[in-house]
Amino acid sequence: MQVDYTSAEIASLVGALRTSGTTTRKIQDIASLSSARAGDLSFLGNVKYKSQVPESAATVLLLPADYAGEPKPDQVYLFVENPSVALARLCARIEQSLWPKPPPGIHPSAVIAASAKINPTAHIGPLCVVEAGAQIGAGSVLQASVFLGSEARIGDGCWIMPGCVIGSLCSLANRVRLQPGVVIGSDGFGYEFIKGRHEKVPQIGTVVIGDDVEIGANSALDRARFSRTVVGEGTKIDNLVQIAHNVVIGKHCIVCGLVAIAGSATLEDYVIIGGQAGVGGHITLGKGSKVGGQTGINYTLEPGSYVIGTPAVSYMLERRLQVLHQRLPDLFKRVAVLEKK
Amino acid sequence: MQVDYTSAEIASLVGALRTSGTTTRKIQDIASLSSARAGDLSFLGNVKYKSQVPESAATVLLLPADYAGEPKPDQVYLFVENPSVALARLCARIEQSLWPKPPPGIHPSAVIAASAKINPTAHIGPLCVVEAGAQIGAGSVLQASVFLGSEARIGDGCWIMPGCVIGSLCSLANRVRLQPGVVIGSDGFGYEFIKGRHEKVPQIGTVVIGDDVEIGANSALDRARFSRTVVGEGTKIDNLVQIAHNVVIGKHCIVCGLVAIAGSATLEDYVIIGGQAGVGGHITLGKGSKVGGQTGINYTLEPGSYVIGTPAVSYMLERRLQVLHQRLPDLFKRVAVLEKK
Amino acid sequence: MQVDYTSAEIASLVGALRTSGTTTRKIQDIASLSSARAGDLSFLGNVKYKSQVPESAATVLLLPADYAGEPKPDQVYLFVENPSVALARLCARIEQSLWPKPPPGIHPSAVIAASAKINPTAHIGPLCVVEAGAQIGAGSVLQASVFLGSEARIGDGCWIMPGCVIGSLCSLANRVRLQPGVVIGSDGFGYEFIKGRHEKVPQIGTVVIGDDVEIGANSALDRARFSRTVVGEGTKIDNLVQIAHNVVIGKHCIVCGLVAIAGSATLEDYVIIGGQAGVGGHITLGKGSKVGGQTGINYTLEPGSYVIGTPAVSYMLERRLQVLHQRLPDLFKRVAVLEKK
Repeated sequence: MQVDYTSAEIASLVGALRTSGTTTRKIQDIASLSSARAGDLSFLGNVKYKSQVPESAATVLLLPADYAGEPKPDQVYLFVENPSVALARLCARIEQSLWPKPPPGIHPSAVIAASAKINPTAHIGPLCVVEAGAQIGAGSVLQASVFLGSEARIGDGCWIMPGCVIGSLCSLANRVRLQPGVVIGSDGFGYEFIKGRHEKVPQIGTVVIGDDVEIGANSALDRARFSRTVVGEGTKIDNLVQIAHNVVIGKHCIVCGLVAIAGSATLEDYVIIGGQAGVGGHITLGKGSKVGGQTGINYTLEPGSYVIGTPAVSYMLERRLQVLHQRLPDLFKRVAVLEKK
Repeated sequence: MQVDYTSAEIASLVGALRTSGTTTRKIQDIASLSSARAGDLSFLGNVKYKSQVPESAATVLLLPADYAGEPKPDQVYLFVENPSVALARLCARIEQSLWPKPPPGIHPSAVIAASAKINPTAHIGPLCVVEAGAQIGAGSVLQASVFLGSEARIGDGCWIMPGCVIGSLCSLANRVRLQPGVVIGSDGFGYEFIKGRHEKVPQIGTVVIGDDVEIGANSALDRARFSRTVVGEGTKIDNLVQIAHNVVIGKHCIVCGLVAIAGSATLEDYVIIGGQAGVGGHITLGKGSKVGGQTGINYTLEPGSYVIGTPAVSYMLERRLQVLHQRLPDLFKRVAVLEKK
Repeated sequence: MQVDYTSAEIASLVGALRTSGTTTRKIQDIASLSSARAGDLSFLGNVKYKSQVPESAATVLLLPADYAGEPKPDQVYLFVENPSVALARLCARIEQSLWPKPPPGIHPSAVIAASAKINPTAHIGPLCVVEAGAQIGAGSVLQASVFLGSEARIGDGCWIMPGCVIGSLCSLANRVRLQPGVVIGSDGFGYEFIKGRHEKVPQIGTVVIGDDVEIGANSALDRARFSRTVVGEGTKIDNLVQIAHNVVIGKHCIVCGLVAIAGSATLEDYVIIGGQAGVGGHITLGKGSKVGGQTGINYTLEPGSYVIGTPAVSYMLERRLQVLHQRLPDLFKRVAVLEKK
C-alpha cells in the first residue's frame, strides 16, 4: 500500500467520536495490534485482543468508545462506535484511491458484436468478447479478457474481473462483483444412461444473479436444465464453489470456499455454509440454517438448524458424539472387564 | 428461453405415441409439474411425482404411456415411451435453435501459428491462440479465448468453450465438449525432496481424451510424468475436478464435482464417483464400482463395489455404523449401568 | 514424446556409474517396468518393483548401483546412484527440447501499458495484458492471455502459463511457475453483517510469493484484508487450492489438490497437507507438521505433528479409532449379552 494520511485526516474519515494523544507521523500502512510498527494504523476488532493495545507500537489505534486507557507519547487513540466498521470505511477510501473506477469506453482490442447494447458509461477493458444481443448497464466494468455470451445481461455498477465467462442468456443484476475466472452458465451435469452410454440431457436454462452478489475466483455456476439457476440478492460466494443446475439460493447467504451444491437444492435466505461442505440434490436448507465446514448434508433442514459432520447431525449432538468416539478405546476395555466378571 | 411451439409441433418433435386434450396456446417455456403455468410444458420424469400431474397448470405434459388420467380443459397430454428422454429430445432441438453451430472460419483476432493445421470446416472464435503444429478437426468449435498448445490435437466435432487451455502435445478425440476454464495438460505435481528442497520432477507426458468425453468448468487434468494421463470414451467429468498425473480413467465413467483423483490411480469402465470424494494414488477402482460423495478411498476396489465414508467401507456397513455411532451416548450409559451392578 | 537417444547418449545424460549389455536400438519413449516395450527406457524407482526388472521388455533400464542381475540380449542396464533422480535429469533434458524457452520480446497482440517496466529478455506472449506500473524481470515468460494488474511485480525466470490472473500490487519473486488459470490477488472473503446485509470489508492488502514457488492449475490466492498474504520460498501448491486472505505459508511446504486454507492461518516451514484437507482460520500448523487427506483441522499443531480425520486427531489414534469404529456392531452385541446375564 502507498497511503499517506495524518491522524486528523483519519479521525475525519472514520468519524471518530473522541481523540486522545498526538503525533506528527503520517500513517502509511495498516497492521494488527501485535505486528504494527511506528507509522502504522491498528485497531481493536475483537475484545479478546484488548491486552495487546497498551503494547502496540501502532501510531494510530481505532478503539471502541468504552475502551479505558491512554496512548503513549507520539501515539493517537481514535475512539469510534465500531472499530471494525471504522476500519472498513477507511479501507474503502484507500481502495478507491488504489483502484479508481476506470473511465467509460471500449478498449480497441475488445471484440464487440454490432447488436450488443453497451451503456456509454460502462468500461469494456482489453481483449473482452461481447456477443450478439448482450447488454451491459451503466457504470459496469469488464476489466479484461471477459467473455459475455449472446443475449446475456449485466446490470448497472457491476465489476467483472479478468477471465470471467458469462454464458449466453445468463443475467447479472446490479452491483454484482465477480472475482477472476468465475464461470456463469456452464452446462448442468445431466445425462440419461441409455444402452451403456451416458447420453447428454441438453441444458437450456439460464443463471440469474441478484443485486449485490459477489462470487469468488474460479467458482462455477451451471445453467439450469430448463428454467433458472438462481442466486438471490446480497449473497456472497467464496472461491472454487460449485453450484449445480437448478439450484436456488436465497438472499444474503454465505457460501464458503470449495462448497459443492448439487442439482435442484434450495437455500432459503440467510443460510451459511462452511468451507468444503457438500449439499445434496433436491433438498432445502431452511432460512438461517448453518452448515459446518466439510459437512455432508443430504436431507432437508428446518429453518434455524445448525448441523455439522458427515452424515450431518445437530452441532450439539456432533460435539458429544466426537467426545464419545474418542473414548471408544476406553469403552472397549470397560466392556472387556465386565465380560471377565 | 424464447421458444414458441404449438402442441402439435411438440407432439411431432418428441414422437408422441398418443395425444389427449386440446389447446390453442403456444408453449414458451418448460417448468416442473408444480411450478408450471399456462404456456409451459412439463413432464413426469419420476413416478414419485405422479400425484402432481392432475394439479399441474402446465399447458402440455409429457407422460408415460401407461399414465391413467385425462387432461383439464385447454391442456394437452402427450403420452411417450420415456418422458425424460422425450424432454431431452425437445431440449436438444431448442438448444440447436438457441446456440446454432457457428460458421466455419477463423476470427481475425485469433493468433494462429503458420504450421497449425485447421480443418476448413472448423470455427476458431475471437482471441484464440493456436500454437505451432497444433491440429483441429472437421467441424470443431473453439468458442473464444481458447489456448491450444504446440502439437496439440483436437478431433472432429469438438466444442471448446471460452477460456479453456489445452497444453502442448495433448489430444482430444472426437465430439469432446469442454466447459469454460478447463485446463488440460498442466504439470503433474511431482517433486523429489533433496537437501531440504522439493526439486521438480519434469512432467513430459501428455493427456489423451477419448471420444464423447465432457469435462466441467474449471476442472484440471495434469499431464503424465511420462507416457499418458487418459480419459476413456464417453466419460463425463463435472466442474472443479482434479485429475492428477498418470491417472487412467476408463470408458463411460461419471466423476462428480470437486472430486480429486491422485496420481496413477486407475478407474475401470463404468465407475461412478460422487461429489467431493477423494481417490488415493496408485489404486484401481474396479469396473462399475461406485464411490459415494465425500468418500475417501485409498485401496483397490473389486468390480461392482459400492463404498462410502472416510475411511471407505461398503455402503451397507457404513449405514449400519452410522446408526450405531449415533447411539453411542446410549451405549455409554448402558455400560455405566452394567458397571454399577 | 518424440525423443531419439542412443543408450550411450542416455548413459552420458544420466551420469551412469556403470553400463551392462548392448543394443543398437534408439530410445524413443519412457515407460514403467511392466508396460515398457522395445525402444522404451524404464527405471527401478522403488525396490518393491525389483522383481519386474528381469521381465521388463525395456531396451534401457536405469537401476541402482547395487542391483544384482544382467540384461537380456539387446538390452542395456545403466547403473546410477538414484534411478528416480537420474530419470528426472533425463526428463529435464527432454522437457527443454520439447518446450524450449520462447525468445525475448512482446507479441504484437499483447496490450501493454506505457508505464510497465518489462526486462528486454522477458517473453510476453499473445493476448497478454500488462497494466500501468507493472514490472517483469529478466527471462520471465508470460505464455499467453496472462493478466498482470497495475503495479504488480514478477521477478526473474518466472514462467506464467496461459490464463493466469495476477492482481494489482501483488508480487512474485524469482523462478515462480504458475500453471494455467491461477488467480493471485482475488479479494479476500470478508464481510460485516450490518442491518441484515453482508457489507463488504474492503480487501486492500496484497499477495507476496517467494522464490521457486509453483502453483497448480486454477488455484486461487486471495489478497490480504490489509498487509500481505504470503507464500514462502520453495513451497509447492497443487491444483484447485484455495488460500484465503492473510494466510502465511512458510518455506518448502507441500499443499495438495483441493485443499482449503481459511483466513489468517499460518503454516510454518516444511508443512505437508494432503488433498481436500481443510485448515481453519487463525491457527498455526507448526514446522514440519503433516495433515492427512480430507482432514479437517481447526486447532494449532505443535511442530512435527501428524494428524488425520475430522475432527483431526493424531495419526496413530485415528487408526485405532477407525478399527474400533468398525467393531461397533460387535460391541453393541457384547453389551446386549452382558445385559441379559
